Amino acid sequence: MAEKDLKALFVHQLKDTYFAENAILKALPQMAQAAQSEELKAAFETHLRETEGQVKRLEQVFQLIGEKPQGIECKAIQGIIEEGQEVLKEFAGGEALDAGLIAAAQAVEHYEITRYGTMLAWAKQLELGDVEGLLEETLDEEENTDELLSELAEDAINPKAAAA
Amino acid sequence: MAEKDLKALFVHQLKDTYFAENAILKALPQMAQAAQSEELKAAFETHLRETEGQVKRLEQVFQLIGEKPQGIECKAIQGIIEEGQEVLKEFAGGEALDAGLIAAAQAVEHYEITRYGTMLAWAKQLELGDVEGLLEETLDEEENTDELLSELAEDAINPKAAAA
Repeated sequence: MAEKDLKALFVHQLKDTYFAENAILKALPQMAQAAQSEELKAAFETHLRETEGQVKRLEQVFQLIGEKPQGIECKAIQGIIEEGQEVLKEFAGGEALDAGLIAAAQAVEHYEITRYGTMLAWAKQLELGDVEGLLEETLDEEENTDELLSELAEDAINPKAAAA
Repeated sequence: MAEKDLKALFVHQLKDTYFAENAILKALPQMAQAAQSEELKAAFETHLRETEGQVKRLEQVFQLIGEKPQGIECKAIQGIIEEGQEVLKEFAGGEALDAGLIAAAQAVEHYEITRYGTMLAWAKQLELGDVEGLLEETLDEEENTDELLSELAEDAINPKAAAA
């Protein structure tokens, strides 16, 4: 019988998040390309590089707990990304496209924030040592990206979308 | 041709969130039933009643902007809920089930937090008046629920899962 303890749950979540980060890596270039604002394009490109580092950190976590890096299908991120792509298609060429892209990106960020927050709480409970620091670094990056996107939306993208 | 402005994007998001809240209404009783801890069961039941109020608030928002309450398929919430149900199945009868249920519920909360946060920013930009207050009330509830679940996890559920 499969293990059903907190460590097993942690490993399950880790594999789910590994799949999610790799799916985000594939989605970000499309979002950067679609963005009309140069600032938003740059923000997506910066986050693409950050995400590459986050994938590497997850691989370090796998190694620290003696597991092989491996993903399991994450239906949540698939749904979130698919929904973003629908908005991209529906609002293409329109004045609110960038606002829609930011909303899609923030849905992705919030998914990551909740997953890293949960894994960090479990890692603390399981006393996983160095794992905590790695998860904390990524959680900080995701929270910063979310805030940066909010500022960009409120200061530039939303007023432009409404004035068009 | 369909409108592609910020108001159209707001209405699109509103319909998506209306679908999502109704899907959550259906999922919560199953989560309450599955929860092993009485405290967690009670938290899900309280949030079920809150969600009923949130659906009503969304209907008021539709009315205020002169639209008929209507949902559009929200693949993101479908994926998030489906993933939670998989954890429920996989960890049923195990000591980490409640920790998995909390993680699933917090993924739902974070989805709502990002959507209400975005709609609130757009409502402010569009100067939608009373709509803002309604969205703010729900956003506060979602953030409180998320915090309450974190406290419950850290104070009671995770230590119990790890000690089992």
